[in-house]
Amino acid sequence: MLMVNEYFDGKVKSIAVNGGDLPATIGVMAPGEYTFETSQREYMTVVEGKLRVKLPGSMDWLVVTNGETFTVESGERFELRVARESAYLCKYE
Amino acid sequence: MLMVNEYFDGKVKSIAVNGGDLPATIGVMAPGEYTFETSQREYMTVVEGKLRVKLPGSMDWLVVTNGETFTVESGERFELRVARESAYLCKYE
Repeated sequence: MLMVNEYFDGKVKSIAVNGGDLPATIGVMAPGEYTFETSQREYMTVVEGKLRVKLPGSMDWLVVTNGETFTVESGERFELRVARESAYLCKYE
Repeated sequence: MLMVNEYFDGKVKSIAVNGGDLPATIGVMAPGEYTFETSQREYMTVVEGKLRVKLPGSMDWLVVTNGETFTVESGERFELRVARESAYLCKYE
């Protein structure tokens, strides 16, 4: 059964996909600002759209677009700014 | 509001994402065999996993993996064989 998850009052939705090398989710983010906390290392790849991310310990906003990936270690917090609906793939390790 | 759609008794689930050049959905397919009918031209890209597709007018099964895209014109039918949970991005034109 494919699991659908919702966060931030439905402004972020994801579907689990477990056929690859690592457990993963694909999801869509509506425009907005979000703070995420990791419980595993996360590899976030933008599939369609653009995300601005402030990585742990950084003061700068990094622009991440189609095909680009950023990594956040477990137990960290990162912030995202989303200007238009964007799709992502997140792998967990 | 992010739209989640289900097909084939929940074995295929998708989320609409409308921030790019074309309307699109990202989704996950559980293992199985599926026949789709198009009402628009569709550009299907495998995000994570592997799909075997029999394109309209073809007798052969084409293997499509991460980052690869196939196109199906509007008003056509195509078949998919999915061996393991796989994620895709579909753009509509």
